[in-house]
Amino acid sequence: MKLATYKDGSRDGQLVVVSRDLTTAHYANGIASRLQQVLDDWGFLSPQLEDLYRTLNQGKARHAFPFDPALCMAPLPRAYQWADGSAYINHVELVRKARNAEVPESFYSDPLMYQGASDDFLGACDDARFASEEWGIDFEAEVAVITGDVPIGATPDEALESVRLLMLANDWSLRNLIPAELAKGFGFFQSKPATAFSPVAATPDELGEAWSGGRVHLTLQSVWNARKVGHCDAGPEMTFHFGQLIAHIAKTRNVRAGSIVGSGTVSNKDWSKGYSCIAEKRAIETIESGEPKTPFMAFGDTIRIEMNGRDGQSVFGAIEQSVASLVE
Amino acid sequence: MKLATYKDGSRDGQLVVVSRDLTTAHYANGIASRLQQVLDDWGFLSPQLEDLYRTLNQGKARHAFPFDPALCMAPLPRAYQWADGSAYINHVELVRKARNAEVPESFYSDPLMYQGASDDFLGACDDARFASEEWGIDFEAEVAVITGDVPIGATPDEALESVRLLMLANDWSLRNLIPAELAKGFGFFQSKPATAFSPVAATPDELGEAWSGGRVHLTLQSVWNARKVGHCDAGPEMTFHFGQLIAHIAKTRNVRAGSIVGSGTVSNKDWSKGYSCIAEKRAIETIESGEPKTPFMAFGDTIRIEMNGRDGQSVFGAIEQSVASLVE
Repeated sequence: MKLATYKDGSRDGQLVVVSRDLTTAHYANGIASRLQQVLDDWGFLSPQLEDLYRTLNQGKARHAFPFDPALCMAPLPRAYQWADGSAYINHVELVRKARNAEVPESFYSDPLMYQGASDDFLGACDDARFASEEWGIDFEAEVAVITGDVPIGATPDEALESVRLLMLANDWSLRNLIPAELAKGFGFFQSKPATAFSPVAATPDELGEAWSGGRVHLTLQSVWNARKVGHCDAGPEMTFHFGQLIAHIAKTRNVRAGSIVGSGTVSNKDWSKGYSCIAEKRAIETIESGEPKTPFMAFGDTIRIEMNGRDGQSVFGAIEQSVASLVE
Repeated sequence: MKLATYKDGSRDGQLVVVSRDLTTAHYANGIASRLQQVLDDWGFLSPQLEDLYRTLNQGKARHAFPFDPALCMAPLPRAYQWADGSAYINHVELVRKARNAEVPESFYSDPLMYQGASDDFLGACDDARFASEEWGIDFEAEVAVITGDVPIGATPDEALESVRLLMLANDWSLRNLIPAELAKGFGFFQSKPATAFSPVAATPDELGEAWSGGRVHLTLQSVWNARKVGHCDAGPEMTFHFGQLIAHIAKTRNVRAGSIVGSGTVSNKDWSKGYSCIAEKRAIETIESGEPKTPFMAFGDTIRIEMNGRDGQSVFGAIEQSVASLVE
């Protein structure tokens, strides 16, 4: 099942069911108006949405209309939790190697995660607005899941069972604000502005065998200013799977329905696969030649992030954003 | 106006209006069922709640009932944002001095803030459950505000105008998990379990002149195992006022209605006023005698956090929690 949230001027938008091929959609009216509502009562509401999804895919839904990703808010326009991991340890290794820092041994057994802001997400095609290009504007292409309820102390296997939906994320980062912020010791804050998500959130069964072991075994493509810069395999090199990431959160507290958990920048050891964030490209340049060469993003730049299934079709639709100045 | 959220088995509870003296309450049925709903549409809904509040205070509300803090969830049982500052720089100075670390000059102009988890708050009288006493269980008594919408780039003065409600917070901390977690560089995560809030959230006018300059000029009392350990002045030593803290969040992103912003541990230079978290007491002991003497909390311990107005009456009701083992 594929779900999206249409802009309607309200804070939470209107829930729509989207056909498997992303061509048509249907309001979920009569079942649920908001995605959080469905996550709060998944067992009761999701089968009703599945019925509508089936009818829509058969071309028999009575009030279907063409699906337009540009009209989408984030599937959850605001959420009660956005916790982002850095689960591809290769990314951490590269960034650290570029500044001659070691990767602590514990990083291979204890995931890095940060708590992100979740009150104001961006839709897949919304402009990303920043006050200054000097902040080091960077995209970060990721896979993310939305969970059901996970009790405190859940094991990774138990936590994995809670995955309700998958999406893509663009975890915008302001690289030049990060060093001073991390030096303060409390983690990211101003350096992580509003995150964008794919037009569509899909249930795990939509990925077929590509969803395996808590990882998505598909290629994540990043296209920056119409140039393909990343075609990274999201699967085998994900050091910590989603069940492990969710269990990390649940060690000391409950994780409640509608929590979004991100994978961190998808990253491969094979540099020929490109990159899912510019910081990584700059780290490679620094390792190779002593300094970064690729600049961060400028106003007017575009970024497109998408993932195709094994059938070659887009699974979640594309995140397709322009970088814009806050002051018009 | 004073508002609370009664437990009713649902995730968001039932909104109630509470009388100024905290003796009676009335369901807000017919106006709004959940507090987030009111924050989403404050201009329209809050005057209707104010009318009910006035009637309740006059003893004329038809279906009033005795108010019981033990039946309260957090005023917002889950929220779209919980951002906690460390606005009393004395606290930072003490903790750093105890480990022979300097306070960077920037800490006096740039607030320390961390993003907290907001999907599962504790009610004022809920037990705080932890898997292990070895984690270094500590309370942190704070003041917190709930905001309306704040646009990206708002000034501190503009941000201050967005304060809709005030409450008290107990920002539970697991001290022995903090050093390893902060060493990872991404900030607090497992070391900050579910936060508890006072039974009641109050509009700023309820504090009269004690709400001034974005600070609450009242004494915050902390009573640990029936012993008063803190009577700290929350006002003049708050280095950054709430408008400054909110503007810090809004530097790179919008802050949306229902965001909770905390002051951090209330702390005074005058040690005779006691402490609002055990870590501070232990820092003082370390400075005085080379090592901490006061242990952290044990299962069965109780903590009571309360603030009286200038009329001597409790403003928000008391946070009154027991520490309990996760395994019963």
